[in-house]
Amino acid sequence: MTTNRQWLIAARPHGLVKESDFRWNEASLPELADGQVLVRTIYLSLDPTNRIWMNEADSYLPALRLGDVMRGGGIGVVEESRNSGFAKGDIVQGLLGWQLYSLLDGAGLTKLPKLPVPLTAFFGLLGHIGLTAYFGLLDITQPKAGETLVVSTAAGAVGSLVGQIGKIKGCRVVGLAGSDEKCRWIKDDLGFDAAINYKTENVYESLQRHCPQGIDIYFDNVGGAILEAALNLINMHARISVCGQITQYNSDRPAPGPSNLAMLIMKRARMEGFLCFDYTPRAEEAFTQLIGWAMQGKLKYRVDVVEGLENTPRALQKLFDGSNTGKLIVQVGPE
Amino acid sequence: MTTNRQWLIAARPHGLVKESDFRWNEASLPELADGQVLVRTIYLSLDPTNRIWMNEADSYLPALRLGDVMRGGGIGVVEESRNSGFAKGDIVQGLLGWQLYSLLDGAGLTKLPKLPVPLTAFFGLLGHIGLTAYFGLLDITQPKAGETLVVSTAAGAVGSLVGQIGKIKGCRVVGLAGSDEKCRWIKDDLGFDAAINYKTENVYESLQRHCPQGIDIYFDNVGGAILEAALNLINMHARISVCGQITQYNSDRPAPGPSNLAMLIMKRARMEGFLCFDYTPRAEEAFTQLIGWAMQGKLKYRVDVVEGLENTPRALQKLFDGSNTGKLIVQVGPE
Repeated sequence: MTTNRQWLIAARPHGLVKESDFRWNEASLPELADGQVLVRTIYLSLDPTNRIWMNEADSYLPALRLGDVMRGGGIGVVEESRNSGFAKGDIVQGLLGWQLYSLLDGAGLTKLPKLPVPLTAFFGLLGHIGLTAYFGLLDITQPKAGETLVVSTAAGAVGSLVGQIGKIKGCRVVGLAGSDEKCRWIKDDLGFDAAINYKTENVYESLQRHCPQGIDIYFDNVGGAILEAALNLINMHARISVCGQITQYNSDRPAPGPSNLAMLIMKRARMEGFLCFDYTPRAEEAFTQLIGWAMQGKLKYRVDVVEGLENTPRALQKLFDGSNTGKLIVQVGPE
Repeated sequence: MTTNRQWLIAARPHGLVKESDFRWNEASLPELADGQVLVRTIYLSLDPTNRIWMNEADSYLPALRLGDVMRGGGIGVVEESRNSGFAKGDIVQGLLGWQLYSLLDGAGLTKLPKLPVPLTAFFGLLGHIGLTAYFGLLDITQPKAGETLVVSTAAGAVGSLVGQIGKIKGCRVVGLAGSDEKCRWIKDDLGFDAAINYKTENVYESLQRHCPQGIDIYFDNVGGAILEAALNLINMHARISVCGQITQYNSDRPAPGPSNLAMLIMKRARMEGFLCFDYTPRAEEAFTQLIGWAMQGKLKYRVDVVEGLENTPRALQKLFDGSNTGKLIVQVGPE
């Protein structure tokens, strides 16, 4: 009998997520039932939204209960299958959870196509990250050449793609990031027109300086004070793509929202939220385009790989203290 | 020579607008120059947006300077014209200002068509109020029969029309107002499905009770805590029409915005601001429909007429202390 190793939710986090909010568990794997697939996890994707999944309230997915295996998107290999849709050796992606092995009925599990990219690209360039960046920018905001696009968490997995897609579409792109090194990366390596270190600069003044024509599009991953600063500089018919509100995820009493939503009236502007899942039917369109741009050298991505399932809780904290650059991934086992 | 009487802006208001923020002035009227029109004011429209016009900063219109005649929408009669577009006796609408007479070059001045409605209907049912209610609901939110529509300031000029148009379109309509009498009016006389007294009830709990299927459309005139409560109850693909943010207009340090904008993500929802001016080219479509509904008895409106230009500053306060019902108008002179 194989032994499974897994991280369970031990407590609802208050404020920043702590290692003690999780509990390590070892359990023997049951036999496969008819219709089931046994998947060995290779990579886990860590994303800000994981923090939302730990709350007591339902979100866009049902809430987890205390004692449940922590939910997590992963890439794995089928080790055994009693489901006609999957065969041993298939490389699959789905909500595998923070564990070595998962027993699944195949719903929500996708076989990954053979593409000329490394497996980690399914998290760094494609997958939910690619869908989020591609449709969250192009579908929600419809950027036009010459417009000014501002992106928050610009050195993160989604933000770094959004800014580059904005450049491909001919926008002036200004990114916000939390260190000088991140700012250097998005400006010098990714081709952003300007970068703002939101930890050391006055965000409103820097936005004003770097957006002399105002802001047409704001891709919002953070909410809070940066959203308020951006709203003060929007142009007529501006579009705000609401992708994340990371400043609101970690507090029991969420920070106040922007006090200047009346700017939406003054500028006849729009804020719209979205989730990448809704775009799954159009994934092929996005992935073909993203791979094409990457192969032409127009689109770069960076993965930040942490080794070992045992390090997953600590790795998650990196998303909230700003110490990762690019897509944060845990390698659980060999490819 | 005719003597003009007018209210000038004497001070930038801090907090609620005070009578002392205005200064009464009498001045002789100059002779008409070529191209000018002399208009005698009959009615002035008082609207929450007047408060925005008194601020030092530009809004969707340039800021007024201290000492300027207070800006105000009005209906008047042409007394004298040296402009080929207007003749003595024409009834016109435009930004006449808080004064007995205005000398205008005709730009922004509209001749009112002869319609089977009283002149006050151009403020209570048509004009900027009608455009705001009609397009702010129908164009921005595209209501469908069976959906739940929540309206704030529901006993106000715009809100009372929005709720009734929602009923005509087959929505379940829930209104928020600031007194039991206003709640009675919108429910018993205007046909809203439910009314909430936001001053005496727990808004979130009452919304939850009266919107058992959630909220599909929120027509927001207020912002702040009511917007936050509504956001917590929105359905998938909800639309929020941002018409006003009256809770934010009267403070030097604006109240915080909603802390739950992440609901826009969870529910793939949209907030959109608009201004009625943008819909002027489509006014005929709206007015024909609004008059038709009014003549069929499906649409009622109420005007709250204050007599005398001298009472205008005091009348404006009624919009912010909640003591008016329906459209607030000042009668400056005879029809």
